[in-house]
Amino acid sequence: MKSVKVRFFDLFFIFFFICFVFRLAGSAQVKKVTYIPKPGEYKYTFGQHKPVLRIKPEWVVETTTEDCYDGRVKSPQDIPTKVIPPDHDNPQTGPFYVEGAEPGDTLAVHLLKLEPARDHGISSYFPYFGALSVTAYTALLHPPLPEKVWWYEINRENKTVRFKALSGNFTCEIPMRPFLGCLGVAPAHNESRWTVVPEAFGGNLDFPEVRPGNTIYLPVNVKGALLFMGDGHLVQGDGEIIGTAVEAAMKVAFVVDIIKNQNVSWPRVESDDYIMSVGSYRPLEDAFRIAHKDMVEWLVADFGLEIMDAYQLLSQVGVAKIAQVVDPNYTVAAMFPKKYLPNAAKLSTPHNKLKEIKF
Amino acid sequence: MKSVKVRFFDLFFIFFFICFVFRLAGSAQVKKVTYIPKPGEYKYTFGQHKPVLRIKPEWVVETTTEDCYDGRVKSPQDIPTKVIPPDHDNPQTGPFYVEGAEPGDTLAVHLLKLEPARDHGISSYFPYFGALSVTAYTALLHPPLPEKVWWYEINRENKTVRFKALSGNFTCEIPMRPFLGCLGVAPAHNESRWTVVPEAFGGNLDFPEVRPGNTIYLPVNVKGALLFMGDGHLVQGDGEIIGTAVEAAMKVAFVVDIIKNQNVSWPRVESDDYIMSVGSYRPLEDAFRIAHKDMVEWLVADFGLEIMDAYQLLSQVGVAKIAQVVDPNYTVAAMFPKKYLPNAAKLSTPHNKLKEIKF
Amino acid sequence: MKSVKVRFFDLFFIFFFICFVFRLAGSAQVKKVTYIPKPGEYKYTFGQHKPVLRIKPEWVVETTTEDCYDGRVKSPQDIPTKVIPPDHDNPQTGPFYVEGAEPGDTLAVHLLKLEPARDHGISSYFPYFGALSVTAYTALLHPPLPEKVWWYEINRENKTVRFKALSGNFTCEIPMRPFLGCLGVAPAHNESRWTVVPEAFGGNLDFPEVRPGNTIYLPVNVKGALLFMGDGHLVQGDGEIIGTAVEAAMKVAFVVDIIKNQNVSWPRVESDDYIMSVGSYRPLEDAFRIAHKDMVEWLVADFGLEIMDAYQLLSQVGVAKIAQVVDPNYTVAAMFPKKYLPNAAKLSTPHNKLKEIKF
Amino acid sequence: MKSVKVRFFDLFFIFFFICFVFRLAGSAQVKKVTYIPKPGEYKYTFGQHKPVLRIKPEWVVETTTEDCYDGRVKSPQDIPTKVIPPDHDNPQTGPFYVEGAEPGDTLAVHLLKLEPARDHGISSYFPYFGALSVTAYTALLHPPLPEKVWWYEINRENKTVRFKALSGNFTCEIPMRPFLGCLGVAPAHNESRWTVVPEAFGGNLDFPEVRPGNTIYLPVNVKGALLFMGDGHLVQGDGEIIGTAVEAAMKVAFVVDIIKNQNVSWPRVESDDYIMSVGSYRPLEDAFRIAHKDMVEWLVADFGLEIMDAYQLLSQVGVAKIAQVVDPNYTVAAMFPKKYLPNAAKLSTPHNKLKEIKF
Repeated sequence: MKSVKVRFFDLFFIFFFICFVFRLAGSAQVKKVTYIPKPGEYKYTFGQHKPVLRIKPEWVVETTTEDCYDGRVKSPQDIPTKVIPPDHDNPQTGPFYVEGAEPGDTLAVHLLKLEPARDHGISSYFPYFGALSVTAYTALLHPPLPEKVWWYEINRENKTVRFKALSGNFTCEIPMRPFLGCLGVAPAHNESRWTVVPEAFGGNLDFPEVRPGNTIYLPVNVKGALLFMGDGHLVQGDGEIIGTAVEAAMKVAFVVDIIKNQNVSWPRVESDDYIMSVGSYRPLEDAFRIAHKDMVEWLVADFGLEIMDAYQLLSQVGVAKIAQVVDPNYTVAAMFPKKYLPNAAKLSTPHNKLKEIKF
Repeated sequence: MKSVKVRFFDLFFIFFFICFVFRLAGSAQVKKVTYIPKPGEYKYTFGQHKPVLRIKPEWVVETTTEDCYDGRVKSPQDIPTKVIPPDHDNPQTGPFYVEGAEPGDTLAVHLLKLEPARDHGISSYFPYFGALSVTAYTALLHPPLPEKVWWYEINRENKTVRFKALSGNFTCEIPMRPFLGCLGVAPAHNESRWTVVPEAFGGNLDFPEVRPGNTIYLPVNVKGALLFMGDGHLVQGDGEIIGTAVEAAMKVAFVVDIIKNQNVSWPRVESDDYIMSVGSYRPLEDAFRIAHKDMVEWLVADFGLEIMDAYQLLSQVGVAKIAQVVDPNYTVAAMFPKKYLPNAAKLSTPHNKLKEIKF
Repeated sequence: MKSVKVRFFDLFFIFFFICFVFRLAGSAQVKKVTYIPKPGEYKYTFGQHKPVLRIKPEWVVETTTEDCYDGRVKSPQDIPTKVIPPDHDNPQTGPFYVEGAEPGDTLAVHLLKLEPARDHGISSYFPYFGALSVTAYTALLHPPLPEKVWWYEINRENKTVRFKALSGNFTCEIPMRPFLGCLGVAPAHNESRWTVVPEAFGGNLDFPEVRPGNTIYLPVNVKGALLFMGDGHLVQGDGEIIGTAVEAAMKVAFVVDIIKNQNVSWPRVESDDYIMSVGSYRPLEDAFRIAHKDMVEWLVADFGLEIMDAYQLLSQVGVAKIAQVVDPNYTVAAMFPKKYLPNAAKLSTPHNKLKEIKF
Repeated sequence: MKSVKVRFFDLFFIFFFICFVFRLAGSAQVKKVTYIPKPGEYKYTFGQHKPVLRIKPEWVVETTTEDCYDGRVKSPQDIPTKVIPPDHDNPQTGPFYVEGAEPGDTLAVHLLKLEPARDHGISSYFPYFGALSVTAYTALLHPPLPEKVWWYEINRENKTVRFKALSGNFTCEIPMRPFLGCLGVAPAHNESRWTVVPEAFGGNLDFPEVRPGNTIYLPVNVKGALLFMGDGHLVQGDGEIIGTAVEAAMKVAFVVDIIKNQNVSWPRVESDDYIMSVGSYRPLEDAFRIAHKDMVEWLVADFGLEIMDAYQLLSQVGVAKIAQVVDPNYTVAAMFPKKYLPNAAKLSTPHNKLKEIKF
């Protein structure tokens, strides 16, 4: 009998010990995962590729992204159009399969970290690309402007990059403000889109608020959402008018969450100070309209404003950001300051949860 | 010896006979093929689907296409947005794999026949679609217009359809002029595009010159080109402003050819009287520019005009056709009358060859 | 008593005689007037200039117009940007003050005659102008294309002009189809607009249906309407893509009418076969929308179709014409074939009256 | 002799006294002038009106402007479209004739003061106006949204206005940041433009940087430049999406200068931190292109950057501001931070001079 008791206790102990080990192992496994893409693993379309990793909400995921030049521009003498193979623009890391994400849900992606992986950034003019250039779509009879490459050295201490004029001696330091040019999921309608394109699924938004500390909300169109990221930017002006920012490979850490049974039509972004709706289309006024209509509807649905009141208030306090006017679709964000939100105190979004995750 | 000779002769004869039989059989097999899609075989993206049939240049291919409503609108009482399953717009027949077509080539598709498969055509207004309606992209705060269906009876003898007003008694007969709203290949950059979208790969051009007797030239982006077709229209005005033409399932016959090592950037069309360049993008002026720049370059490359002379001549004799202003990209065609072409007499295009094929 | 009778008869006779004389004199005076502009009388804005002539409905008015080059390009060697003084583009004849026209009315202008005044037409590329060129508004960093002049000899017998390539020997004959590039009234809001601009007041529409045999309806914004005309074109392709048609000074005859208390929002045109609405704005889709919305409203207001039926019918039988994609506003026309008009037989418009006027 | 000396001294004294008196008188007359428009003196077009006052560089000019409602909306119950007479939108104060300004020069206008003249501001939705509404140009078949008026009380102590929802109780305070919606000169080409329109001459830019402390540079198109101003805004979000800001009558003080023989193509603005180029056109991407091309050219012409270097640097550090997406032309500004300007230390602009003027 005694032995029985002992055995029972032993079993109990062993059971709990095993649970404990699993919990530890589990927490070790699930809380923090790393995926470093090998050559050949980058993706060149946003679409239904085989996942490279399955992740869960609140896991910290560490990964890296290659620059928009596919890592092929290795010196200021490398001409992008000569060294990048066809259809190798804007390589994407991923896709990450998010367990539990289903069509009709919203995926929240919170960026925890974004750091340049090398000691330089690169910018260039691509022929037939750019807001002040003839392009494949704004198709005029002029030859393109001359292809050029600007090489920006990074000063990690000052957190700056250095612009050097190609003609003359002018040079200046520009503060880094890293963000991901591309963040997207598999598109609706079973589409696969070139990684240069932004649309409702996110993608090449080139929107500087896709940065550490902020949360991006994307529509889930397929099971697992299939999250892609890439095209790190160290610095970018509004509109990205020459067609490229200061481009860099990046070290990234992020965490995701799922909002079940609530869909967003277009990407949304949340910072501590703003909620933002992001529209990507042509002409530029349609991108602007998409973003601003979505914001009015957001104010109505989640914050209880009547539609005309929402339209009026956004009209007076809204900030409109032109992300880029160079990609196949243009991107504009409508930003609403949280301080003017009715009932904002009650706001309980993934952003507030995810930003507390220690990393 | 005699018997040997005879045997030799016999073998010879048998060999040639077999060859002859095979040639006949071959010609019978290869000259005319038929593919009738079964339920579930339609495609809802232009992309790299598994081919339904492998075809060769100059084969006559007979097939059928379903209407843009996926065949689900079976009576005037069926509301399209209620009866069409998600992502079942604009079903495509195909893809047809064209033997010998490789990236960098041009695919020529000559339509031989296009006849309505049923005794009616259908048109409707879809909410958030149409040139005079708020849309997903021209995103305003207005509710959509009321969804409506117009049922057009076909009069095969008169070759007309009958418009009947939904309010009041007005009715009129409109001559049929059938064409395929969709004709396209697998897109570049490994994209898959929703069947509602036209772009450089063709697709939902909604261009009335994609009709029997005319030849369409499309860029080959992948091995086998992967040809899709669908969205038959019995009648359509310029711009397709309500978002749909008089839509119908179709019986189709076509023949293809390959122009090796010559690529087109955008779809081109050839009729007996015109050469045409087709641009699809937004805003509408960019679609216009794409088409007209392509035509200037065509006049320079194939007909020997200096670029400014080509620009001038097109400016005076060109015909511009607005195909549609409703799809995610708008479509405009630049048409140049063959009678003004330098050296047109020497013109030796697939069109002139393919139109001679007896059917 | 007898004498009284006689006197009464005499008076009667004299009265009728005087009436007769006045009627003759009247008909002679009012039925046909001529105004030939002297140097310095041309106008370079559509606005509230002092009238050059007061005219009445149904008077036949004969006049002349100068070419868009202000008559300064007198040989193929004259470079337009060097010989045309600043602000002397597109000289206009007029304004004609139309007796009885008041704000809220519609002015109908029927063109009776349009003939080239010289033996040549001229076309050219202006730097920073044209649909396939950088412009002041589509402001890219490219230098303009080279300025060039094409000289077209008129063959009055064949009714053609001859295109001659500047490089190489190619030449061809193009049938003349003369029309007025400019026809407009004083704008609303007391604006004066540069003669290069089309808008709701008409102006530089560059629409080939502004031609002999057709009637143009314009909104009356000021007392007397103030009618201007100029910029004769012998030949023009759709879109006028190089920025100029085959330009020519013209001999013109026209007649006007007033539709009291009925206003049009945008120019309308009537031919024997079509009614047309003309929109001029940017982007091109807005010009398209303006024209097509106006046509739907016209079909509803004057022909009794319910609005969705009108939208549907126009969608199937409408013809859309791109007039020009080069001026500060672009111009698109929506054309509806009269044969599909409900109650068209009952149509009683100024067009039907004015086209009967013998000239 | 003595008397002679005395007389000589007297004359001397008298001469200097007179000079002194004139100087005082002169300074009194020329240094500070005031013009308060009487009813009926407001202008409703930017054009060649008779000047209301002749001013000279460096004079301080004090004046007032009426609100965009022509001062007719006197209570929240006044419906703008019912109380504003036709063509009485956006009344302008002026024009001021600037002595010495001639075509080819640039007019610099420095705003010294801008204060609300009443205790409230007004905003409203006008039917067929606004970025998320059908308009006269984005002409769809939908009826307009409901016309509404929002009344904003001013809190002068807090320097805020109070938004009050029309439906529900939500209310919030918004900091005032007054600027002039309209500032412009007589247009080129002898045009007169409706006061709702912005273009190269300035006008209804609705650009928040047209505010006290900043200097606006405008092209001089006619002798005296003819300066207009009006349409004061207390608060406005980017894009002015509902069509109106928080509109108010204003008390204004400004000072002008002339840059001889240097022309600007489009309005430019200078603050202590930025130089800015302002483009106004449609589509929105053309407004964007105009502003950014002008900025690149400015960087090249005045700061010695090579054109591709200027394009690159602007691409990385530029700020793009969408002023408004509601007027007949849309307005976008390209802003370049002075801290990145080569040779900025040497910058000697009217801004640096005019901002020192004590007021």
